[in-house]
Amino acid sequence: MKLNEGVEWSIHSCALIAALPEDAALPARKLAEYFELPEAYLAKSLQQLSSAGIVSTKKGPGGGYRLAKPASDITLLDIVEAIDGRSPCLQCTEIRRRGPTGVADTAYKKPCGIARAMLRAEKAWRTELAKVSLLEILRKGLHESPKTQQAKAVKWFEDALR
Amino acid sequence: MKLNEGVEWSIHSCALIAALPEDAALPARKLAEYFELPEAYLAKSLQQLSSAGIVSTKKGPGGGYRLAKPASDITLLDIVEAIDGRSPCLQCTEIRRRGPTGVADTAYKKPCGIARAMLRAEKAWRTELAKVSLLEILRKGLHESPKTQQAKAVKWFEDALR
Repeated sequence: MKLNEGVEWSIHSCALIAALPEDAALPARKLAEYFELPEAYLAKSLQQLSSAGIVSTKKGPGGGYRLAKPASDITLLDIVEAIDGRSPCLQCTEIRRRGPTGVADTAYKKPCGIARAMLRAEKAWRTELAKVSLLEILRKGLHESPKTQQAKAVKWFEDALR
Repeated sequence: MKLNEGVEWSIHSCALIAALPEDAALPARKLAEYFELPEAYLAKSLQQLSSAGIVSTKKGPGGGYRLAKPASDITLLDIVEAIDGRSPCLQCTEIRRRGPTGVADTAYKKPCGIARAMLRAEKAWRTELAKVSLLEILRKGLHESPKTQQAKAVKWFEDALR
């Protein structure tokens, strides 16, 4: 089971955007530069984040992406679902109804027990993701990232926001 | 995030195999017939289940697949991991170390906080899967499947195991 790379890029990008001073914004080009990512692909993820109401765009000079709401109101689940969607991980194709023993669709009163068990487990995953806010990710990142990197990041931000 | 169709096929196939009388076995051909699945693809999943020690093969007349251990000792997690592997859903590519602010690898003392948060959520998913035994799946299936289908299944088993 794989999440596409846009999920990783998006969480890191949102955390970086969350660190911006109020009213500041970062263009896709600078975000791509920061993480050495292909700008065109990253732009697609940013568009998905924008559609989901997680980031918004600021026009004009000094424009770019910023959070559409406080970092404390954005969860990992919001970001994962913005990029990866909400479809169940197991696509139940109702194979229980097929073949020589299958009977009329109306006879199946409950959803497939296997699909239900798989969905319950998936719900546990989504519940855990929903417990982690972007603010928490940002704080942990600031606390744990190397001091040498933080010094370089401060300088990079100064240049990027000039 | 998607699980490949082999996971759905394998859980259903294992539940069917779990319903076999003791010492009986079902060839891949009959399993494929029961669920109207392409035999060659199903055979690949059965091979993976066999490598994982979930099913074993019985040679000779009346041969085929049977469970390698009691249904109570097999969980949904065992089956999912046999088919889908154990790699993390989010492949952390350490983009935090890249770009203009990246510093020496040795400066990063802890694994990426984002990857850790994603892994925690994934662990919740695997933990839920590990709570569900194949025996439970079988019982629920027997209890919930249409009586008309069960009657046809009994007949189908009689023919298949003749």
